[in-house]
Amino acid sequence: MAQDVNPPRGMRDFLPAEKAKRERLLSIIRSQYTARGFEEIETPVVEDSARLHSGLGGDNEKLAFGVLKRGLDSDDVSKAAASGDLTSLTDLGLRFDLTVPLARFYATNRAKLPGVFKSIQIAPVWRAERPQKGRYRQFVQCDIDIIGEPGILAEVELITATAATLTALGLAGCRIRINHRAILKHLIASWKIAPKQTERALITIDKEDKIGVDGVVAELVALELLDPELAEQARADLGELADDGWNLTGENAPAWLDSDAYAQLREIRDAVKAAAPEVPLIFSHNLVRGMGYYTGAIFEIQHPEFGYSLGGGGRYDGMIGRFAGTDAPAAGFSIGFERIVDLIPDAETDAEGAIVLLHDKDVPPATLIALQTELVAGGKRVRLEKRTKNVKALLARAAESGYGAVANVNPQTTSVGELEFRPLG
Amino acid sequence: MAQDVNPPRGMRDFLPAEKAKRERLLSIIRSQYTARGFEEIETPVVEDSARLHSGLGGDNEKLAFGVLKRGLDSDDVSKAAASGDLTSLTDLGLRFDLTVPLARFYATNRAKLPGVFKSIQIAPVWRAERPQKGRYRQFVQCDIDIIGEPGILAEVELITATAATLTALGLAGCRIRINHRAILKHLIASWKIAPKQTERALITIDKEDKIGVDGVVAELVALELLDPELAEQARADLGELADDGWNLTGENAPAWLDSDAYAQLREIRDAVKAAAPEVPLIFSHNLVRGMGYYTGAIFEIQHPEFGYSLGGGGRYDGMIGRFAGTDAPAAGFSIGFERIVDLIPDAETDAEGAIVLLHDKDVPPATLIALQTELVAGGKRVRLEKRTKNVKALLARAAESGYGAVANVNPQTTSVGELEFRPLG
Repeated sequence: MAQDVNPPRGMRDFLPAEKAKRERLLSIIRSQYTARGFEEIETPVVEDSARLHSGLGGDNEKLAFGVLKRGLDSDDVSKAAASGDLTSLTDLGLRFDLTVPLARFYATNRAKLPGVFKSIQIAPVWRAERPQKGRYRQFVQCDIDIIGEPGILAEVELITATAATLTALGLAGCRIRINHRAILKHLIASWKIAPKQTERALITIDKEDKIGVDGVVAELVALELLDPELAEQARADLGELADDGWNLTGENAPAWLDSDAYAQLREIRDAVKAAAPEVPLIFSHNLVRGMGYYTGAIFEIQHPEFGYSLGGGGRYDGMIGRFAGTDAPAAGFSIGFERIVDLIPDAETDAEGAIVLLHDKDVPPATLIALQTELVAGGKRVRLEKRTKNVKALLARAAESGYGAVANVNPQTTSVGELEFRPLG
Repeated sequence: MAQDVNPPRGMRDFLPAEKAKRERLLSIIRSQYTARGFEEIETPVVEDSARLHSGLGGDNEKLAFGVLKRGLDSDDVSKAAASGDLTSLTDLGLRFDLTVPLARFYATNRAKLPGVFKSIQIAPVWRAERPQKGRYRQFVQCDIDIIGEPGILAEVELITATAATLTALGLAGCRIRINHRAILKHLIASWKIAPKQTERALITIDKEDKIGVDGVVAELVALELLDPELAEQARADLGELADDGWNLTGENAPAWLDSDAYAQLREIRDAVKAAAPEVPLIFSHNLVRGMGYYTGAIFEIQHPEFGYSLGGGGRYDGMIGRFAGTDAPAAGFSIGFERIVDLIPDAETDAEGAIVLLHDKDVPPATLIALQTELVAGGKRVRLEKRTKNVKALLARAAESGYGAVANVNPQTTSVGELEFRPLG
């Protein structure tokens, strides 16, 4: 049955070199977050369908893979078809983000969690999207969230931890853009757009990277959200801010600025600046972030070389406590792991500590294992490789896997002392 | 909407302490395997339904969670119901083991893999089993496999790596039982059971831990597999072996012993003994292992305090190359992670390196982050905790999370030098 064999559509296998790199980076992320008092949790990859489709997930809910109920028979299925409601066929679904599961986790385990809970989730999610370059149907998200802290200390901790992690990953040149929902609302209100149209207007403003300020204003007018007479004002208000956007105080403050929210953002900036000076925080008054659940500060990781964001987050009070039936202030920050992994160069492996024992076919296994055991006990990584016709290819492959030395083992070899190591690659 | 909120049936949330322990143990397993030349890979959690149900998975195939096809409408569903073939409703399924995905991975990526490929897979699998104590619907398996090595060096490397890992995990008292399919066949043939009944007879012999030797023999007779006149002989043959079972040579060799296979097992034992003396290898002539695909040596991790095995494996030539349409010798060993995780005591955490900064509500975030940043740069783990009414409970919880010291921060604090640390817990 030789055939074309591929992983499921839009999903990937990871070969050893790529897998090792991913694990290395995840371990850096984990340790940076942990060092700052966050704690990792894990939830099952599936959640009850009702929870996945409760409205907390926005458009992503449509992209959930559903799991067929067990034990259905033809009758059940034909009833579902007749009713036109196919949702009765599934009881579980693969999670499409880590926020809905966090809300469920919080509801389940609240009694065992501290009043302010700082969580780490590093785990895959699934979305049945049309696969395309850089967009996969299974991908890893790295989220930190703080539940229970209403003040800006939450935002400060999230941004500091994220910025420090970007630095530790060796991802130079990143900036974090920040804005506040109140500032967006104030801006929109200053153009006399009706409050109930705010969300629709935000969808348009969110396209600024793609269609530019002129495009945004034209679309707002075309959608009849914006009075054409105010187009010029909107264009001016959306125009670029000077420098990093932090000088809009006193007489520099534009009319559209919500000054309380802006003062809050400046306070966040001051606290973060000292901790993570390599990752500047930029005020971007046109930053929207797609999800409708944000209620306060919002942020996004940007790299000048890439048109897409490398991660983002914000405050989303009122959502995380939904399943628990309580109100819980919350804020989170997510690193788009799949987007950064390719941007980070491979690490130098410890090639000197990794040894290939190239052995003839007739060396007794006991000899090989004794040599390996002694070398491993001495801190080495040791791979046994049987001599093949194409030794060159075999050693080249080992060098690619990070092995830096090779020694021959023949049937007469009895101890590590007799091995002669020569460099590989 | 306050309600009883649970994770999906048979699945678990992991709170921070448990998650930290799991990650610590997985990291030990990973590093032990890696040190011995194995390399980690990863495959998607779902595979095409056709591959999951190709017969390689044995009874577990029935336990696969199916994923509903996207974009089905009522017509499609009612056609499926009418045809009686509900498999057309699903195109993917959650993997129930790591062996079927490995066979698929090998078929997909063979050209990029070395001639002898030594893989690590540490990942969750899903089975729609009736949940019961210690048996979950999502659980982690830790598999190592060697593809492409026909000789016993594969078994030796697998057993050595596994035994060393058990030791590194601190799981004292384990033994590894070993047997060989050829020995089982020879044993059964010596009782004049027809070769085509071998698999049925093995199912009965596999129950020896539960029903004892007498039970096994009675069942073989009741099933009309065994001539009652040979019952006495079978009972004697299945009786306990002396010591570790390695003395069945020369005149000690019983009639049922396949001496070639036994010699092979002895050679494996000799090679493993020196490397991992703490984990004895025991010859168990009635060890069966459930899966029908085993073709050579089979092994199982046993702990005297537990009635169930903690892991197992064996040689399964001919299976892994099935999807690739080639013959590939292969052997593997799997550690039952969920079974061992509770047997291993929690580690002493580095409590001295973990500090709580207990701060008043009005300490500026910038001050807190500056203190945290300096301490983290010095290698500490630092959690910010706002003073609550019940400080005692808050600190007790931090101590449980492995924090070993606390210092107060008030609005006047400006530097780490002013902090007074006192031990926690």
